[in-house]
This record gives sequence, C-alpha cells and structure tokens, in this order.
Amino acid sequence: MFQDFSNAANPEQGRQRLPLLRDQLKAEKLDGFIMSRADEFGGEDIAPYAERVEWLTGFTGSAASVVVLRDKAAIFVDGRYTLQVQDQVDRDLLTPVAILEQTVAEWLKENLQAGEVIGFDPWLYTQSAVEKFRKACDETGATLVPCASNPVDAIWTDHPSRPQNPIIPHPLLLAGEESADKLARIAQSFASKADASFITQGDSIAWLFNIRGSDVARAPLPLAFAILLSNGAAYLLTDLAKLPEETRAHLPGSVTLASFEELPQIITTLSGPDKRWMLDETIVPYAVKSMIEATGATIEKAPDPCLKPKAVKNEAELAGMRKAHHRDGLAMCQFLHWIDAMAPTDTLDEISAVKALEEFRASTGCLKDLSFDTISGAGPNGAIVHYRVTEDTNRKFDQNSLFLVDSGGQYPDGTTDITRTVAIGAPDREMKDRFTRVLKGMIALTLARFPLKTKGIQLDTLARQPLWEIGLDYAHGTGHGVGSYLCCHEGPQSISKRGGAELETGNVLSNEPGYYKTGAWGIRIENLITVTKPEPIAGGELPMHAFETLTLCPIDQRLIDVSLLTSEEINWLNDYHEQVFAELSADLPDDVRAWLAEATKPLRAA
Amino acid sequence: MFQDFSNAANPEQGRQRLPLLRDQLKAEKLDGFIMSRADEFGGEDIAPYAERVEWLTGFTGSAASVVVLRDKAAIFVDGRYTLQVQDQVDRDLLTPVAILEQTVAEWLKENLQAGEVIGFDPWLYTQSAVEKFRKACDETGATLVPCASNPVDAIWTDHPSRPQNPIIPHPLLLAGEESADKLARIAQSFASKADASFITQGDSIAWLFNIRGSDVARAPLPLAFAILLSNGAAYLLTDLAKLPEETRAHLPGSVTLASFEELPQIITTLSGPDKRWMLDETIVPYAVKSMIEATGATIEKAPDPCLKPKAVKNEAELAGMRKAHHRDGLAMCQFLHWIDAMAPTDTLDEISAVKALEEFRASTGCLKDLSFDTISGAGPNGAIVHYRVTEDTNRKFDQNSLFLVDSGGQYPDGTTDITRTVAIGAPDREMKDRFTRVLKGMIALTLARFPLKTKGIQLDTLARQPLWEIGLDYAHGTGHGVGSYLCCHEGPQSISKRGGAELETGNVLSNEPGYYKTGAWGIRIENLITVTKPEPIAGGELPMHAFETLTLCPIDQRLIDVSLLTSEEINWLNDYHEQVFAELSADLPDDVRAWLAEATKPLRAA
Repeated sequence: MFQDFSNAANPEQGRQRLPLLRDQLKAEKLDGFIMSRADEFGGEDIAPYAERVEWLTGFTGSAASVVVLRDKAAIFVDGRYTLQVQDQVDRDLLTPVAILEQTVAEWLKENLQAGEVIGFDPWLYTQSAVEKFRKACDETGATLVPCASNPVDAIWTDHPSRPQNPIIPHPLLLAGEESADKLARIAQSFASKADASFITQGDSIAWLFNIRGSDVARAPLPLAFAILLSNGAAYLLTDLAKLPEETRAHLPGSVTLASFEELPQIITTLSGPDKRWMLDETIVPYAVKSMIEATGATIEKAPDPCLKPKAVKNEAELAGMRKAHHRDGLAMCQFLHWIDAMAPTDTLDEISAVKALEEFRASTGCLKDLSFDTISGAGPNGAIVHYRVTEDTNRKFDQNSLFLVDSGGQYPDGTTDITRTVAIGAPDREMKDRFTRVLKGMIALTLARFPLKTKGIQLDTLARQPLWEIGLDYAHGTGHGVGSYLCCHEGPQSISKRGGAELETGNVLSNEPGYYKTGAWGIRIENLITVTKPEPIAGGELPMHAFETLTLCPIDQRLIDVSLLTSEEINWLNDYHEQVFAELSADLPDDVRAWLAEATKPLRAA
Repeated sequence: MFQDFSNAANPEQGRQRLPLLRDQLKAEKLDGFIMSRADEFGGEDIAPYAERVEWLTGFTGSAASVVVLRDKAAIFVDGRYTLQVQDQVDRDLLTPVAILEQTVAEWLKENLQAGEVIGFDPWLYTQSAVEKFRKACDETGATLVPCASNPVDAIWTDHPSRPQNPIIPHPLLLAGEESADKLARIAQSFASKADASFITQGDSIAWLFNIRGSDVARAPLPLAFAILLSNGAAYLLTDLAKLPEETRAHLPGSVTLASFEELPQIITTLSGPDKRWMLDETIVPYAVKSMIEATGATIEKAPDPCLKPKAVKNEAELAGMRKAHHRDGLAMCQFLHWIDAMAPTDTLDEISAVKALEEFRASTGCLKDLSFDTISGAGPNGAIVHYRVTEDTNRKFDQNSLFLVDSGGQYPDGTTDITRTVAIGAPDREMKDRFTRVLKGMIALTLARFPLKTKGIQLDTLARQPLWEIGLDYAHGTGHGVGSYLCCHEGPQSISKRGGAELETGNVLSNEPGYYKTGAWGIRIENLITVTKPEPIAGGELPMHAFETLTLCPIDQRLIDVSLLTSEEINWLNDYHEQVFAELSADLPDDVRAWLAEATKPLRAA
C-alpha cells in the first residue's frame, strides 16, 4: 500500500525543538534562521531527510517557510494551508502567517533589528528569494549570511540520510529518443548563448538521461544534479552507489559520473571569467549560483533547457501514455463499479475507497506508485480542493451525496491523473446543475481548435464560462502539464489564469474544471488531454491544434441535467462513452462490463 | 472636411534629401543617424513639424525607424506597411526592412563598423530602445551619441513650427472630477514610491488637467509635458502663448505654468541625489530621463500613473459617451440608409462614402474631428485592415460585394469608433457564413460575465472561437481601449492575445472581431462596450462584471445565416436592435426611421 492515513501533525514538536534550534543558532553566532519546506533539487516532493519543517514544527503541508528569531518565530503558508497550520503548530511559539497577506521579506522588515545576523539555508532558496531577504535585512540594518550547513540537521539526532535507491534505465522503447540525442539536442539549443547549463530538477535529469529513480514518493525521480556543456558532454552528480552497472552501461559515453561532493571542484574546473553559464533562476539553488559566480563566469538567465523539450511528448511517450490510460481506465471502471455496488450498503468511507482504488490499480501488475495521494472526498470533504484523508478525518458516505475522487498511477509507460465525481444515492437539482456546468466547461476545452502559439491563458476561460455566467468559479487552474512516467505536475504548459506558455504539439495537460460548495460537496471532472499537431480544416486557412483525450473512464450520467447541454455537447459525450466502451469492455470482467455498458449508454437530448 | 485623399507618397524625396542629410551628418562629425516617426510626446498622432520620416523618405505610414549611414540607409516598418513602403520610398537609396525579420539593433550590428560615430534623436526614443542601439554599437566598436538637435531639422528649409493652437478647458460637467482632485489622487498614488513623476503623453496631460487641445489631427491633445510632485503640486510645460486667460483661470492653483525651454532648469531645481522620480520607461524620452539621471536622482520604473485612472471612466464621462454614441448612431443610420439607397445606382465609391459619412457626422453640429481617418473599404480593399483610401486607390462599389466602414467621431462629450460591414447587392453563401461567425464572436464577448481581475487576454478567445473552429482567424486584437474625448486608442485595457491588463469597471473598449478574405472582401463588426460594476447573480457566489454596449447602430441582417445562430444569440441581436430603434427612431427623418424599422426588425430562428 503506497498511501497512508496517519495524521503526523504534532504541535508538541515545536515546543521541544525550537529551543534546541535557538541554542544551535547561538552557538553558530546567528540571531535568526530562515528555511523552507524544500530540498536542494527544487522538486515538488521531497524525501524524509529534507522534511525539516515538519520535524521542527509539526506542519505537514507541502509548502512553507519558517523564520526563527531569538524571541519570536513565524511559519508562512499559502491559502491551501491557512487552516491546517493552525492545528499542526504550537501557535504560542510559532506565528502562522498567510503568505498572501505578508511575505517573509515583509515580516523580516518588521521584525529584524539593526546589527542582527540572520542565517539561511542556501540550498533551499533561489537567488531571487534571497535577494528579497537581503533587501529586508539591508533596510533594517541586519546582515544575511548563507549557512554552510543547515542548523536543523545539527540538532536532528535521528536525521534520515539522503535516499540511496538505485537509479534504473528508462528504456528507449518508452523514452522514444536516445539520451545521447537529447544531450546533443539540448546542448545545441543553448550553445550560442552559454558554455554550460546547470540542471537541478529530478524530472529534467530523468528525462535527459533516460533514467528513473525512487528517491521521493509519488514520482520516479533520482536525486541528482547535472551539468550540461555546449559540446554535448555532461556530468551527472549523485550518490554513486545508486548507479548499478546496468545503468552505467545505459548512459551515453559523453556522460561523466561524479559524487555530490565533487560539485565545487567540477564547477571550478569547468568555469572561469571567460565562461557563460545558463541558469534557471527560478530553480537553481543560491548555493550553486554562488559557486559559479565566484569563478567570475557570466550568468545568462534562462529557463531550464530541458523543460520545453520534456513537455513535448514524442510518439513513443504518447503511445505509452495511451497504454497507461487504457490500464488505468480498467482499474477506474472496476473501482467505480465497486463504488456503485457498495453505495447502497452504507459501508463506504473515504479510506476504504482509497484502499480499493489502490488495489484495483495494483492488480494491473504495473503500478510503480501512485502519482499523488488520492483525494477521496465524501460530501463536504469533496469541497476541500487539496484534501488528503487521514484516520482523523475519514468520512462515511452519506446517501444522496457526492463523492469526489482525484487520483492517478505511475506506470512505467506513463503517468495518469483522473478525477470523477459520482452520485451516492439521488443527487439533488443543484448538484446536477453544477455538475452539468462543470462538464460543459470540460467539453468546451476538449473541443477547442486553436492556432499555433496559443497560450493556456487564452483557453482557460472556455472551461469557466458556464460557471461565470451564474456567478460561480473555481479557485484553481483548469489544467496542469503531466509528465511521461515523471511528475504529475510539470511545466511550462498550463491552462490557467496565469498560463503564459504557448501550447505545443505533444504537450500533455489535465482538463479539470470544478465547483466546490463549501461545507456541502465538491465537483471536479478531469481527463488528461494531449495537444495534437496543427491540421488544416477543409475550407480554412490556418492549421489548427486540437486536443486528443487520453483518459478512458465514464462520466456519471446520473449527475447530468441534459436540458443544459447543446446537441454538440451531447454528441461529444456519447462519442466519448462509445470510445471508452469500445476500448475497455473486452478487458473487463462480465459484471464490470455490464456496468460499463450501462454507464456509457447514449444520452438523449431533453 | 477633416479627411483628405491625397497620396503624399513620393520616392523622389529620398533622392534629393538623403544626400543633404549625409552632408549635414558629416558637418556634425557623424557617420550615421537613427530616428523614428515619432515626436517627443510619445503619442500615436504627430503634428506636421514632426513628420521628419515622411519629409526625408516619402513614407507616410504611422510607424517607422530610419537609419542613415554614409553608404547605406534602411527604413524599418511593421507588417502593416511592408507593401506600402515599397511604393513610397526609393529602394535604391533606402532598403525597406520588415522589423519582425530584423530589428534596428540587429541591422546596426550587421552594418556598423568599428570607430563610427552614430547619432540619434534622444527625444524620439525611450531608454530601452536606446539601450538596444547602444549594445549593437558596443559590439561593433561604434559609438552612439545623442544629438542636441535633429539633423533633419537643419536641412528642412520650410520646417513647420510646433503647433500653437489654444489649449481650452474641458468642463467639469463632462470630466466628472476636478483637476485638483485628480492631481491629489494621482500624487497620493505614488507618494510612497517617488517624489516626482514626469508625464509625457498628451492624453494623460489632457485628462489630468481637464484641458483639451488641437495640436495633432484626430485627437484633442495639447502638446505639453507635466511634472507631478508627490505633494500634489504640478508643472505644466508648453508654449505659453497656447494658454488663454480662461484656461489659466480653469487650472488649479497648485499648477505652475512654464515654457518648454524651462524644462532643464525645472528638473535641476526639483531633482537631486535625495530625490526619487517615477518614470514610465516605455514612454519617457531618453532626453528627459538623461536630464533627471544627471541630477543623481533615483529612478523608479512604473507605468504613467494617469494611465489606469484615465481608463476608468466616471459616471459623467460614461454619460457623455452615451450621448456621443446616440448622436453618432443617428449619423451612422443616415449614412447606412444613404448607402442602401445609393447602392443600386452603381455610383458609390469609397471616397464618396467617406465624404457622406463625415457630412452626416458634421451635421450633428458637435463634431470636433474624426477620431481617425475613416477606413472605407469596398470589395478587396475591405480586406486591408489599415486601409486609407486615396484618389489613387479609390474603388467603385461592385454589385454583390461587401463594403466595410470603420470610423468614429470626436465629440466634446465622447469619442466613438464603430465598424459596420454591409451588403451591396446580394451576398454569397461564404460572405454570410463568415459574417455570421464574426457576429457570433462579437456577441459571445458582449454577453461574457467575468470575475474581478479578469484580463483581456482571458476573454479574447471568446470572439475568435467561431472562426478558429473552421480554420480562420483575424490578425488583429479584438478590442482596444477608447478615451473619453481623447485618443481613440488608449491603454492599459485591451482584449487581445497580449491583453495583460485586468479589466476594470468603467473601462471603455472596442469589440471588433473580423475576417478578411485577401483580394476579395473584408468583414468587421465593431461596437464600443464598457465594463460594468461587478454585480451579484441570483444564486451565485461571486459578483461578476458584464459589458454594456455603447454603440447604437443596426447590424446588417442581410448578411446573417440564421441557421448558425443559437437562440441566445438571436435574442441578443433582437434585444439590441429593439434598443437601437427605441433610442434613435424619434430623432431621425421619416425615411431614415422607416429604413431603421426595417433594419432592426426581429430575426426569427431558422
């Protein structure tokens, strides 16, 4: 079982550990310390050794900064966690701050005093974050200094070590392009601008070298750094024990293996005043940037050169994604059939649903991990967008309610992410109205045709219109990029109010509008879609992109108010359901096939 | 008559004048010179004294840069003018360059030689443009120097002087807010960030001081500069002879009048190393920024602080806009009635249409100017988006064709901008299909409801969808901001693929999708719309903005394929036409009223 349901929250921790940290800071001649819930690899998921914020404070959310001064301390969280943080930390010792209301830098400006020396962990922040802290320190007369090692590690007696899981090859059949070719292609993409590029994030490294790891939960990432030179040569830095012979043989000859400890020396060797480095300043740790700057090299700011190529899936990756979605669709159908069968028994709860779904996925024999902790929201818990069920919050399914389940699997050939909202008992009129509007938005986006260079922000509104027109909206993006047996969230592609990247052929994105009635229920419908090659349209002048839907799973027709759908929308739904049945039915047990036949039968206009 | 139809193009000019300019450059010890079609006030329209590019080269387009070196010269234009420039300049002497293919800086990098000294007019470029030139010079070993005066002026023997037209008060009844209150409000908006702000553009100055001028065609702008201090005091710099006693009395007491010549001394007096200036680096001339920098002041980059407040029209301005649109609608109805009456006679041409329309507008007794040269495009000329008819291009109306007319008036209470496309004879199936799709897009945008903080780019797609789905698009924005008896194009609001500003209550914008069949005909339908206050919707959670349509003029129903419209779209059109008839019919002559009754009769579903 991948997912667990423990509630790790423990405000007690802060009471014991904050004083210990203050002693340590004193010993290091620091008046304060700044750190964040992050690791040096800039990814969304981190390994236990990097869970310093949780260890220190008890807070288990996925994003936070902590500032500890001599007589006060604060923890900064975003809108997702403003309630959770209140329960998880000792508020007498640690003041929760909503980062939208006060940034770390603003808080520092109010609370620092002249002459204070404030440390920060230079591996957990980028240059731009550090500059804001530095400005706040300058304005108050305090001094900001990077710490050579994190003071929390000094007091964390049973501190886990960095994970040592093996890095394995990702076969060409699934990757679709040799690592050597990727290395040459990426090197060429920046050769006119820089001599070297530092790659921080695990998914860029996994993609570039056609390798996968298991160092963090929910994504097959190897913890490693890479340095790519403009001649196509590369350095891969990691714990060398993680590299079995098979993987070493799989890596291109132009790759030099090195340990993390060798990083400073390698930078010194490669760099110098005549060298130009391309760094993604939104990702590269301050510590690395400082090392490179110290050699006198010129720094060119540019996005990680792997980001865009990685987001453009090739035919092999798309074929893998389709296979993974076929497999995942079978598991989802078994699960939804089981839910429908069990719902009348009044025995379902959120945890049993998560367990059943994980078992159906595991029974495919290919499940490597979940792609994230399943969001299993019954009734009012469905309205909590980032809900994760624990033993404390586990809720039984009520009759005449909604159940929202957002989940995904990591398979060797692809990553899935799907949300379905299903009726438990008889839905009321409002549920059906809102569900149908969310569905209309999802269909509008699915059916969009759009020219080259269209950005996600230009399409986001299509999914929101049916809600906007009755005064409703949802407080999250419509679509995020999805990796190919990599991270469930990847950039640069996104369909949202901030989606500034141009969509490209081969991008994979989610399409997941929703509506949440706080305290009552939540609705979200999510398919993954891929951007197709621009094709001419008969009689038209411009080739237009379209979306191909990857997800194969019925949408609950019991929740549709058909009078709100246009004939075009009904046709799409019926075509989609026909496809789902055609592709999945042969591989399902009889009872599930019968259920699927019923679930996908054509909807008729009102 | 405001509009003229001359073709000022004269490639001969370059043959005579380029050698004169080269002699002048030699006398000034320059190897080259860079200038643009601009004046020092950063506006879209410029007065004859600033038409240096046209005088030198013969090119009459509204945007261009010219670089003259000792042995070569180039003129840089955007996509609108790549064809026109070929006809208007002597290509043996002056190479036309499409600026999308090669920027001025890129061309400089290719063509400059080490040791050359290149001048530029520091009043015609902003800092950011100059930085690009400087980089190109640095990389080639050339030196870039600002010219104390423009070398073209030295050889332009009958150079017109700067216009001396009086600046008149814009009454409170129309402005809706006292200038003193605006000055205090704007000063307060930047007081925490800067001590002073330099205001370059005529429409910001006109708005801020509640004044209007007539120094450039098509917009009632005074040519002037302003300096606003954080205590609410202000300097207004212009030719003092332009300020009659009535206007001086109308200006708030906190305003100091000064001549242009006093600018350097005023900056010296106000500025210094302890002062912070807020400058809009996309607007403020390099010459002004240099003067301020020379005093040691700190420069804060920020948009012109008048831009956003000016774009939010108050109730008095909106009432004025509604009156102007009522008046303009009457003129348009008379014009369209006249077109319909004349079309069968085969005597219509583009110039006669422009003249008739201007006469109908003038007969309102309130027309101060056109808001731009009328775009009067018969048949294939309708497909040229920025077409301006001349005696050379004037085209007779063919039967069974389309006529596109995009025009507007400057009235003391408001600025209008309207496009209608009308059938001449019997439209074919393709015309009707495209017209109906353009109309669908216009209606979709008109009916949009959207939450606070929505940007124009988020709505632009609504207007394009009906075209995108059949492989068509239009190569311009859907909506630009419109001033209140000011410029017909104003920012920051815009509905386009680049519309990054949040729409605000009181913004006025155009809504003008189109489709252009090159060589055949063009279609555009344009109404002005204003963003309404966010209002709650029954049963909803978020108040939503909507658009109110200001333009009152029928849309040609002979061009509609009703089978393509939804019932919601038909309802909108019928409601709109009912409103047009109700508001205008009483003020029209009998024959025009009868025409309007026919033109606005309800459309029935197919």
